[in-house]
Amino acid sequence: MKRFIPPLFALLLMLPAAVQAQADARDMDSLVTNNPSSGTFPLVASGKTAALCYDAADYPGVIRAIGDLRKDIERVTDCAPALHAVEMLPRQAVIIGTLGKSRRIDELVKSGKLPAKDLRGKWESFVITTIDNPFPGTERAVVIAGSDKRGTIYGIYELSRQLGVSPWYWWADVPPLKRKEAYITSGYHASGEPKVRYRGIFINDEIPCMTDWAREKFGGMNSGMYAHVFELLLRLRANYLWPGMWGSFKEYNPGVPILFDDEGRYEGNSFNEDDPANPRLADEYGIVMGTSHHEPMQRSQQEWLRNKQNYGNAEWNYVTNRAGIRKFFTEGMENTRNYESIITLGMRGDDDKPMADAGSIEENFRVLENIIADQRNIIRRVTGKPADQTPQVWTLYKEVLDYYDLGLNVPDDVIVLLCDDDWGDVRYLPALNGKRHSGGYGMYYHAGYYGAPRASKWLNMSQISHIWEQLQLTYSYGVDKIWILNVGDIKPCEYPMDFFLKMAWNPERFNSTNLQQYARDFCAEQFGQSQAAEAAEILDTYCKYAGRVVAEMMDEKSYDLESGEFKTVRDAFMALEARALRQYLALPGVRKDAYHQLVRFPVQAMANLYDLYYSLAMNRKLGVEKDPAANYWADRVEACFRHDATLCTEYNHDIADGKWNHMMDQVHIGYTFWHPPVQNIMPQVIRVRPEEVRAGGYTFNHKNRVVVMEAEHYYTADPGSGKAAWTVIPDLGRTLSGVALMPYDQETTGAALTYKMKLAPGNARTVALRVITDCTLPFLKGGHSIAAAFAGAEEKTVGINQELTWKNNYSKMYPAAAERIIETVLELPLPQGNGAGEYSLILRPLNPGIVFQKIIVDLGGYEDTRLKMPESPYIKE
Amino acid sequence: MKRFIPPLFALLLMLPAAVQAQADARDMDSLVTNNPSSGTFPLVASGKTAALCYDAADYPGVIRAIGDLRKDIERVTDCAPALHAVEMLPRQAVIIGTLGKSRRIDELVKSGKLPAKDLRGKWESFVITTIDNPFPGTERAVVIAGSDKRGTIYGIYELSRQLGVSPWYWWADVPPLKRKEAYITSGYHASGEPKVRYRGIFINDEIPCMTDWAREKFGGMNSGMYAHVFELLLRLRANYLWPGMWGSFKEYNPGVPILFDDEGRYEGNSFNEDDPANPRLADEYGIVMGTSHHEPMQRSQQEWLRNKQNYGNAEWNYVTNRAGIRKFFTEGMENTRNYESIITLGMRGDDDKPMADAGSIEENFRVLENIIADQRNIIRRVTGKPADQTPQVWTLYKEVLDYYDLGLNVPDDVIVLLCDDDWGDVRYLPALNGKRHSGGYGMYYHAGYYGAPRASKWLNMSQISHIWEQLQLTYSYGVDKIWILNVGDIKPCEYPMDFFLKMAWNPERFNSTNLQQYARDFCAEQFGQSQAAEAAEILDTYCKYAGRVVAEMMDEKSYDLESGEFKTVRDAFMALEARALRQYLALPGVRKDAYHQLVRFPVQAMANLYDLYYSLAMNRKLGVEKDPAANYWADRVEACFRHDATLCTEYNHDIADGKWNHMMDQVHIGYTFWHPPVQNIMPQVIRVRPEEVRAGGYTFNHKNRVVVMEAEHYYTADPGSGKAAWTVIPDLGRTLSGVALMPYDQETTGAALTYKMKLAPGNARTVALRVITDCTLPFLKGGHSIAAAFAGAEEKTVGINQELTWKNNYSKMYPAAAERIIETVLELPLPQGNGAGEYSLILRPLNPGIVFQKIIVDLGGYEDTRLKMPESPYIKE
Repeated sequence: MKRFIPPLFALLLMLPAAVQAQADARDMDSLVTNNPSSGTFPLVASGKTAALCYDAADYPGVIRAIGDLRKDIERVTDCAPALHAVEMLPRQAVIIGTLGKSRRIDELVKSGKLPAKDLRGKWESFVITTIDNPFPGTERAVVIAGSDKRGTIYGIYELSRQLGVSPWYWWADVPPLKRKEAYITSGYHASGEPKVRYRGIFINDEIPCMTDWAREKFGGMNSGMYAHVFELLLRLRANYLWPGMWGSFKEYNPGVPILFDDEGRYEGNSFNEDDPANPRLADEYGIVMGTSHHEPMQRSQQEWLRNKQNYGNAEWNYVTNRAGIRKFFTEGMENTRNYESIITLGMRGDDDKPMADAGSIEENFRVLENIIADQRNIIRRVTGKPADQTPQVWTLYKEVLDYYDLGLNVPDDVIVLLCDDDWGDVRYLPALNGKRHSGGYGMYYHAGYYGAPRASKWLNMSQISHIWEQLQLTYSYGVDKIWILNVGDIKPCEYPMDFFLKMAWNPERFNSTNLQQYARDFCAEQFGQSQAAEAAEILDTYCKYAGRVVAEMMDEKSYDLESGEFKTVRDAFMALEARALRQYLALPGVRKDAYHQLVRFPVQAMANLYDLYYSLAMNRKLGVEKDPAANYWADRVEACFRHDATLCTEYNHDIADGKWNHMMDQVHIGYTFWHPPVQNIMPQVIRVRPEEVRAGGYTFNHKNRVVVMEAEHYYTADPGSGKAAWTVIPDLGRTLSGVALMPYDQETTGAALTYKMKLAPGNARTVALRVITDCTLPFLKGGHSIAAAFAGAEEKTVGINQELTWKNNYSKMYPAAAERIIETVLELPLPQGNGAGEYSLILRPLNPGIVFQKIIVDLGGYEDTRLKMPESPYIKE
Repeated sequence: MKRFIPPLFALLLMLPAAVQAQADARDMDSLVTNNPSSGTFPLVASGKTAALCYDAADYPGVIRAIGDLRKDIERVTDCAPALHAVEMLPRQAVIIGTLGKSRRIDELVKSGKLPAKDLRGKWESFVITTIDNPFPGTERAVVIAGSDKRGTIYGIYELSRQLGVSPWYWWADVPPLKRKEAYITSGYHASGEPKVRYRGIFINDEIPCMTDWAREKFGGMNSGMYAHVFELLLRLRANYLWPGMWGSFKEYNPGVPILFDDEGRYEGNSFNEDDPANPRLADEYGIVMGTSHHEPMQRSQQEWLRNKQNYGNAEWNYVTNRAGIRKFFTEGMENTRNYESIITLGMRGDDDKPMADAGSIEENFRVLENIIADQRNIIRRVTGKPADQTPQVWTLYKEVLDYYDLGLNVPDDVIVLLCDDDWGDVRYLPALNGKRHSGGYGMYYHAGYYGAPRASKWLNMSQISHIWEQLQLTYSYGVDKIWILNVGDIKPCEYPMDFFLKMAWNPERFNSTNLQQYARDFCAEQFGQSQAAEAAEILDTYCKYAGRVVAEMMDEKSYDLESGEFKTVRDAFMALEARALRQYLALPGVRKDAYHQLVRFPVQAMANLYDLYYSLAMNRKLGVEKDPAANYWADRVEACFRHDATLCTEYNHDIADGKWNHMMDQVHIGYTFWHPPVQNIMPQVIRVRPEEVRAGGYTFNHKNRVVVMEAEHYYTADPGSGKAAWTVIPDLGRTLSGVALMPYDQETTGAALTYKMKLAPGNARTVALRVITDCTLPFLKGGHSIAAAFAGAEEKTVGINQELTWKNNYSKMYPAAAERIIETVLELPLPQGNGAGEYSLILRPLNPGIVFQKIIVDLGGYEDTRLKMPESPYIKE
């Protein structure tokens, strides 16, 4: 809401969100200070640390998080606080606990010292406040109280974050802020409830990157690895996870999922089966587990594929193998009975494709409705409770949305999970004034994607502004039960993931005027306040540039070469790289790893890809023209291809001493359809052999009433009767090169350059000819002159430098010298009767020493710029 | 001679230079190898080093250079060879000496073991060869023999260079190549004579940089400092120096040269007077001293200014103070009598300005010819030899050239020094077939310059290709007695200085086809072979970009903003910076200092200056339009201004631990005439206050038959009757932003955006309207539609997304998603009778959720590019 609307009206509209946002910031960003003042609580002061006190009866997940807080305090201050049982409180204490699970918290509420209003009956809420004399013998306590298990945990991590430990400290190697002392400010800080109930991510398409990384670092996608995922989610106030479940997809072979890798290991991932500690630990941490849209009843696709022979006839077909599949479903429900879960209903075909067609839409509906009825029966039987006591979701992904739209019945209590088009555009929303599903709605949204028309797995290609626009849309249409984001391998989707989860906590927090502040806040958290503005601009500009066409889809035709667009976007991306590298160089050493992975790498990788495809476009164009410069561009394509590998290797091996090895293994060059090739493929380049090179032969086409020609691009060059030859001086002058008859001690008799062009001069009898030459001074008496004529019309002779003498030093000689060029303009007659067609311009140097740079035939469209306009389009024989 | 000329003809022309160049390379670049083979001589092998043997009777300058060779061998191999008297030769020896000064060399020539042809009677020539059994008891010797003092010294340094010590090792912190072993290849290597007799530099305008640097590091421009200059010159095979002679010029005050600085020290420099060891040491090293063009008789301007009260009436006027000035001249000649010098004749006015007018040209001639006659008498008297036994020069700088041209008589034996225009363009050459001056000609040429129309002192602004073009011209017209280059403070003119001196040694070595190889060779020497190609391209591209307009002359109007030229050149310069920073990051640590000063700094400094002035141009434009984005650009100008200071500080303090402090003190921002301001001046920027901002008001102008408008740039925006408001979503989409009526849960009734434009539709009754919107899917039944009309003509309604459904997933939905935009094209009627004039286009969103990005009115000129063309020119009310 910027600029456009009458200020007062704008203010009225903006108020709720803006006030909320400001309140959020005021409440939550002022919890910790380095300096004591009246009312502050010394968390760490004079080398002493207040004890962290908790009730042993509290949730294990809360007690675990308190352990994290202890480590975080040590990371920041180098002082680790003591952990105390809440029964024996010291004089100054940090009391942490969950309402109903912590005796001390309950007592504080009962005594009225801690208001109940922000805790009792609330979902995932917490309060942080300082209380004087909370208990006999305790002078003062900072209290972190949660309404429930995750409420307390979120409160704990909020203190961590404000102390200076980024939620991304482990996942992006963000160094903790360093403080000698830390005081907690007085006041009452209440989180409020999240506006979206389940907020989470889907680790997806996690081969080759995350899987190979996890195997190398943890021995697999096991609980050692997932513990880091759970912690990250909680630090970001998420609560929901669809775990990785990918089969092998190294080669596109849809009929036969490959189950074993070269070393005989299972190729795909199965959360529950690969490490039985996975689901147990998720529940302990406080993560609600789900399965992806096409994996019903809390069982992964891999569980079926590995074990299907144990289930009936082993067919994934509810019509032909109902009993077998019911057994499979029942086991899934039994396994998850004791854990917090959302059960996925429904069924799709093998391998995330539509179910086998049962014959008609009505028949397909009947099958699906039967499946759902059976699934709910299983839930009821296994849990011993009505089905609506267990959260369930039914995902309207791909064709299933059409079924829903056609009236497929979904049980009232089931959450209907809507989705985007895999590219971040919401496909379907419930009408605001229509009949609404009582179980409510969720949104399955994508930051990474593996599918048509082209995979988008390598780097983040999403704009925060677009995500915001679509998610505020989503929320304004009442979709608030589940928000889940497909994040691929988590890395390198840190930035959109962070935004998505912040947005999920409170979609009203952001608006068009504070959206760019989000980027600065994110960058301040990861790179420090002083770096935030520049880093944020780089990051958002990267997202905008990258969003124009995803890496995997890009090729040498993605931008227009002739109009200069391709060079423009390539240079702009490289200019952005310059800013990223500048900032990287200026950062303190401890911040370099985080910056490298979050900013420098994606910017460099994409800038290089732009350079590669631009160079390829140049190579193809010049190669066809048999211009030897094509070979330069071929070399450059190869250099970019190698540089791409170098950049990925740096990411894998150099950042944090190789901590993220394999995270940049994703193939991204050489796609021909949506699925990647087995490895990056060096594009075919054209090499021009010396014997193929033909001089001249350029014919230009007028464009917008002007023809601009580099002198080097003549049609024919006649050296005349002397011993001199036409010579290109590469790189001379403002743009391409200079062309001169050399050596200069020879006469120029008969020498000429001819330029061919298509003109449509209409009624014009003359054109303005502009000849740009090097700043040759009249080093011999009489100076230098040229003759110019269109074939078939009168020749004109003109001096180019006779006035550039000491007599005119300040008025003419020095100014020409500083310009480095001489621009000679003459009115030149056109041959009459040619009409719209080909014209030949003949230029003759009348003295040695003249260096032609640019030739411009102006029919009225010339614009005077320093570089004398870009070259006009041409063809070359 | 590239591409253009018939191959055979080209070959004929090229042969002499090319063969010479190849021979040079073959002879000289194969002297040292790491591996022994048949015939190689072990200079350093198995930790043992061959002794360096010389005759104590040789020139002290030769013996001193042998000491350098000893250090260089140690720098490269960590083994220092012994120095031996030539009388007691070991079995394997390196014998170094000057013909006529070294007994052993003379004996070798006499015995025929060393051919005399390349030494006897030759100027500055050397031979390096291996001789078996040169003397009894000596099995083998490598001989470095010089025809004269500098011949031997050049031979010594040639070995140093080929061992891997760059001539710039001290002046640019180039690390020596490291070798464990070094063998000298057999064969006979002869340098030949230089093609230009005196080759040198002029240290000029050396305040503030070089003077303050020398004061801090050496206590002044004394022999401690000059020893490094002499050594550099000899390593580059130069022989001639005009020393620094600047007076203070901190503030432009031509009438009163300030002679003392704040601390009471002489502000200006006087080579002979400031350190009497200066001229003595120059001669010992082997440097021929001169004085600048306007300092006659080997006396500096400062010597006069400091002491003029001792000379007659203290007037610098030969008419009124002839006796006094003759005394001054005579002392100059007496001081230099024992040293190798070239005596400057003639006289200009005070402070490098024309002499006082004697009344008429004839009278001025008479005065000048009298002066020269007197000067030659003094030379004769002091040396006791005819004047033609002493090299003399008369410089035709500035107006003096006109005198010469008018027929002023110059004595036959005096070298006539011609000059460029201070900007690298040769002003005058002797006609090839006219009467030629028997004393021959020289050329005074500029890489740095302090004068009109604008100083050019900060960075190198010269293109090697231009220098080559002008110097081959110079040489081809027979100018070969003196070549002297104004190098300012030496730093940062290393690159053109290196080229100039290589060119001076043999101007025929370079031609248009091997010129770019020079850059690679230079970079290989400084940064290593593997870095050479990339560094060379960066360096030459830098020179080309920088040559377009010198830093001191640049401002916000230097490039065209409206056509996109300014953004294009700024991004291109920053793209070049990205390449420089990439390479810097990839270099081994020991090479970073050299790369920083020779490549990274100039590229970064100029890229930043382009960013600064581009940002200033944007600020001025948007500031006038009262666009709040002007403030962003104002911030950016300030950031660039600060960054400029940071870059200079890094140069001064970080490179080589501050070795070059003050070398980047040159003021370069804020010039208003040729002389710099006292300090860099932050340009005035426009700040737009919130209350000044006016929404809308844009009127576009058709250009080349199309009008392209960012949606944000409407003329008016009507929010309609609902509660929604027009909202800019910054940065959304491919270019500027998105514009939507928000929030999306409100109706759009009556809402409209109006775009105003000037069209000249001719006879067209319709135009093609292209509306670019965000990829909004039909999330509600019926999808999204817009209505469009020109005021006064029929409205058309069109759906934008009805087909983007799952049914069309592969054909339409996914492709649109991957494009991230929807492009809706409709044929829209024009109001009839408006003719060429203003038109209003009204766009109405018929449903909430539509985000406009770009609006294009196409009268036939539309070109389909990914970014949908640059925005058309507009004015804003």
